[in-house]
Amino acid sequence: MENITLSVQGMSCGHCVNAVESSVFQLDGVEQVKVNLESGKVDVSFDNEKVTLSEIKETIDEQGYDVE
Amino acid sequence: MENITLSVQGMSCGHCVNAVESSVFQLDGVEQVKVNLESGKVDVSFDNEKVTLSEIKETIDEQGYDVE
Repeated sequence: MENITLSVQGMSCGHCVNAVESSVFQLDGVEQVKVNLESGKVDVSFDNEKVTLSEIKETIDEQGYDVE
Repeated sequence: MENITLSVQGMSCGHCVNAVESSVFQLDGVEQVKVNLESGKVDVSFDNEKVTLSEIKETIDEQGYDVE
């Protein structure tokens, strides 16, 4: 299991939190995902044999947010 | 048919626009609803024999936004 913290731009409200958390959590191999709205940070715990960091970033991007 | 413009606080993104527009549009008697995110204004056209201004304001409030 791997733990990362991503910096994400553009999340402005609870709807954005839900959009990011639910889309990332739907990925097979993601164990946990938690958005901190104030800091713009997203903590993700994932199994890197099932899902890649690139896939996680792409999923957030598809929701309309910029991942650093 | 009556046309009003409401000032609404707290709408910050496209999700908020959808939340307000879809909830208000679901009210029987509402003909049209359009959010301007930048100005925080919500234009509503409605039949005041079917729905009241209070009901419209309450619906927006229930979505978590302050209506002036």
